[in-house]
Amino acid sequence: MANACDQYLRDHEGEHLDQLKELLRIPSVSALPQHRDDVLRAAEWVAGHLRAIGVPDVALLPTAGNPVVFGAWIVDPSKPTAMVYGHYDVQPPDPLDLWLTPPFEPTERDGKLYARGASDDKGNLFVALKGLEAVVATQGRPPVNLKFFFEGEEEVGSPSLPVFVHAERERLACDFIISADGSMFAPDRPSLTLASKGLAACQINVRTASGDMHSGQFGAAVPNAVQAIIQLAASFHTPDGRVAVEGFYDTVRDLTPEDRAELAAVPLDEEEYRQRVGARALWGEPGYRAIERTSARPTLDLNGVWGGFQGAGIKTVTPAEAHVKVTCRLVPEQEPGQILELIERHVARHCPPTATCTVDRFAGSARPFKISREHPALQKANVVLGDLYDRDPLMVRLGGTLPVADIFQRELGADIIFFAWGMPDSQVHAPNESFRLDSFRQAPRAWCAYLDALAE
Amino acid sequence: MANACDQYLRDHEGEHLDQLKELLRIPSVSALPQHRDDVLRAAEWVAGHLRAIGVPDVALLPTAGNPVVFGAWIVDPSKPTAMVYGHYDVQPPDPLDLWLTPPFEPTERDGKLYARGASDDKGNLFVALKGLEAVVATQGRPPVNLKFFFEGEEEVGSPSLPVFVHAERERLACDFIISADGSMFAPDRPSLTLASKGLAACQINVRTASGDMHSGQFGAAVPNAVQAIIQLAASFHTPDGRVAVEGFYDTVRDLTPEDRAELAAVPLDEEEYRQRVGARALWGEPGYRAIERTSARPTLDLNGVWGGFQGAGIKTVTPAEAHVKVTCRLVPEQEPGQILELIERHVARHCPPTATCTVDRFAGSARPFKISREHPALQKANVVLGDLYDRDPLMVRLGGTLPVADIFQRELGADIIFFAWGMPDSQVHAPNESFRLDSFRQAPRAWCAYLDALAE
Repeated sequence: MANACDQYLRDHEGEHLDQLKELLRIPSVSALPQHRDDVLRAAEWVAGHLRAIGVPDVALLPTAGNPVVFGAWIVDPSKPTAMVYGHYDVQPPDPLDLWLTPPFEPTERDGKLYARGASDDKGNLFVALKGLEAVVATQGRPPVNLKFFFEGEEEVGSPSLPVFVHAERERLACDFIISADGSMFAPDRPSLTLASKGLAACQINVRTASGDMHSGQFGAAVPNAVQAIIQLAASFHTPDGRVAVEGFYDTVRDLTPEDRAELAAVPLDEEEYRQRVGARALWGEPGYRAIERTSARPTLDLNGVWGGFQGAGIKTVTPAEAHVKVTCRLVPEQEPGQILELIERHVARHCPPTATCTVDRFAGSARPFKISREHPALQKANVVLGDLYDRDPLMVRLGGTLPVADIFQRELGADIIFFAWGMPDSQVHAPNESFRLDSFRQAPRAWCAYLDALAE
Repeated sequence: MANACDQYLRDHEGEHLDQLKELLRIPSVSALPQHRDDVLRAAEWVAGHLRAIGVPDVALLPTAGNPVVFGAWIVDPSKPTAMVYGHYDVQPPDPLDLWLTPPFEPTERDGKLYARGASDDKGNLFVALKGLEAVVATQGRPPVNLKFFFEGEEEVGSPSLPVFVHAERERLACDFIISADGSMFAPDRPSLTLASKGLAACQINVRTASGDMHSGQFGAAVPNAVQAIIQLAASFHTPDGRVAVEGFYDTVRDLTPEDRAELAAVPLDEEEYRQRVGARALWGEPGYRAIERTSARPTLDLNGVWGGFQGAGIKTVTPAEAHVKVTCRLVPEQEPGQILELIERHVARHCPPTATCTVDRFAGSARPFKISREHPALQKANVVLGDLYDRDPLMVRLGGTLPVADIFQRELGADIIFFAWGMPDSQVHAPNESFRLDSFRQAPRAWCAYLDALAE
C-alpha cells in the first residue's frame, strides 16, 4: 500500500507543487479587513480541493467570522473517526521590506518554498490533502472515517470557534483530531506534541494630553505618552526577564524532576540556537534552560509598541498617545481571563500618575492544552514517524498556541494529535516564511501510512 | 503714519487673507522627501511676494539643502540694517486623523485660521511681509535698511545654515535680526524673548535577532527588541522625571534667585495650564515650577517609539528591531555635541546585554541662545508692543529652539529680536495648528510701527 502511495505521489509531484503555489498566492490574511475576500477565496479553494479528491458533504459552514471548510467521509461506522484540523488563513506579511521575494509569490530557493503561509498552515494542510488523495487514488477510499475542519481565524486566535464548535458538536463528533498545524523538532528528527501553551492578548493604550504638542514649548511640563508607556511597559518584567505582573506565576506548577529530565532529553544546543536566531545572548525567565522556558514556562511578550513620530529625521513633538501590544503564553493551571485581570490590575497600579491607561482585551484567548502520552492515536503516530525517519520521535511541548485544542477537548471530548511539518527555521509569523521541499515530499507519505495505521 | 498703515491694512484685509491661504495650501514639509517640490514652490511663492512688494535683489540662494529666499533693500547706508528672518517650511502633518479639517486646506473657524504652518511659520512670516507692504504703500520705501532671510529647513534643524551663513556672511551683514518666528505669551499679553534653548537630536536603534519570530516558538528564549528598547529608554529618566543620562546636568548653571524671581513674574497658572493641555498632572524635572522647566531647564524628550506589530488585533511576533527618537532641549553652557556623546555613552552602558544598540546623530544641533535686555532694538520692540497692547511686554525665555539665533550671533555678530505671534494654543507641530485672526490683523500694524521706531 505504502509503495503504491509513494508511486502516486512521485508521479504527481510537479502538479501538486503547482497546486500548493496556487493556494499560497491567495493573501488570506485574517487580521486585515482588506483581505476579507481573499480569505473567502482560500476557503473556496480548499473546499474545491476536498471535493476533487472525492470527499462527500463538503461545505463552507458559516461562523460569526470566517467560514469553516467542513467535509465528512464515513466509510464504516464501526471504525474510528478522525477529524483533520488545519487553517487556511495566514499571518500579515509585514514588515514587507525584509522579504527577499514577495510573500504572496511563492518562490523555490535552496530546497525550500518561500511564501507567507508556506508552513503555517497552507503547506501542512496541503500535504494532508495530498496524503488522502494518494490513499483514495490507490485504495478507492480512506481506511477510516474522516472529517475535515479547516478554519479561517487561527491567526487571530479563533474567536468564533468556541460558539461554533459548541453549536455544531454533533456534526463534528469524532474520536480524536489530527492537526495538520504544528511542527517537527528538526528536519531529521520527528517529534510529537504533548502540550501547547494558552494565550491571552490585549493592547494597552496610554494618553497624556489632549493632543500632540511642540516639545520645545511643552515638553518640559506636559507629560509625554511615549515616556509614560515606556515607564509602564518596563514594569512588566524584572530587568533579568521574569514577568513582574503581580500574581502571574501563582497558579503555575513547578517543573518536576521528571519534567526537567524529559526536557533535558531534547537535543537543543543553546549556543547553536543563539547563533541561528542571530542574538547576542538568549533571554527569558531566570533559573530555566531555554527548552524549559519555550516548552513549559509562561511568558509575557511585547509584540509591538508605537507612539509619536516614526518618519525620517526629526519631529520635535511631545506625543499624547502611545500603545503596546501584549500576548501571554500560558501553561497548565493559568486561566486566560484571570491573567488578563492581573494585567489590568498591574496597569492600574503602574500607570504613571500623569497618564490615563486603558487595556483592550482581544478575543482569541485559549487555555493551555495537554494530551496523555498513552493515547492510542498518538502511539500510532509515534510508530509511523519512527518507521519513516528511522528514529524515535521526540516528545515535545509546543511553545505556540492552538486555541482549538482546548475547545475540541472541552466540546467534543476529542484529544488532538499534531502531525505537521513546521520546522524551527520555517520563519512562521516572520518574513521569508518557508516550507521544506523534502517535507513536501515526505509528509504526504507519512499521512498515507498514518491513515493505514489508524485502521489497524 | 501708523494710521495710514492701519487704513491700508484694513482696506486689503480680505485680499491678504486669501494670499496667506494660498501659501498655506503648499505642503512644504521639509522632513519628507516626497514634498521636495512643494518646499521649492513655497520658496518661489515667498520670493515672488517680496518682489511684488518692491524689494530689490530678491533671489533664491542655494544651500546644501533647501534654498534661502533672500532680499535686500538698502535705503540709506547711514541707517541701521535689520534682517528679517523666518522660514517657509513646515512640520509633517501626521497624525492626519486628528485634524478636524485637512492640514493643507486652510479653514477659518472660531476666530482662527487652521492649517499646518498657520503659525509656524507661514502666518508669522506673512504678517511681516504685510507690515512692510503697508509701509511701502504709504511711505514709498522702508524707513531703515532691510534684508530678508527666509529659510526652508527650520523644521529639520537648519542643517545647511552653518556653512551657508559662514560662506555668505558679507552678503548677510546686518546690525541685528528680527525674527518673524516665535511666540507671544498670550493673545492679550505681548512678550519678548530673552533666550531660547539649544537642540541635540538622535535616533536609537535596537536589534535583538536576525529577524522577527513567532512569539510562541521563540518568545521565551529569543530577546525581544521592543522589550529591550523599553528597558533602555526607561533608563533615560528617573521615575520622577529627572534626566538620568550621566553628566547631563553637569554644565547647567543653577537658577539664581534673580532668575527665579523673574520667572515667577510670568503669570502661568499651573492648574489652568494643566487643564488647557488636557493632562491628568504636569510632568518634568522635580524641584522646579513648570515655567522654570519650560524656560530655563534642559530636557530629554522621547518624540517617538516604534517596533513590532502596530496593526489591528493580534500578531504573535517577537520583534527583532525597535527604535526611539530623542531630542534634548539645552540651556546655556550645554554643548549639543557633548550631550550627544553623553547619550551615546549612556546607551552603551544601558543597552541590554541581549541587544545591539546604535545611535544615529541627526544634523540640526543648535546651541542655546541669549540676548541682553539692554539691546536697543529689543527695547524699541518693547515700546512698540507696549503701546499697541497697552501693557508691558513680559520678558520670557523660549522653550523651543532657533538654531539660526546661535549661528547669526556667531557668524554675523547680530543679535536676534523675536517679533512674532505664535500663541500657547496655536498647536504648532501638532494637529489643528492655527493662527489667530486677530493676530492676523494686529501683527502687520505692529511691524509698521516697529519699522518706524527702528528709524528713530
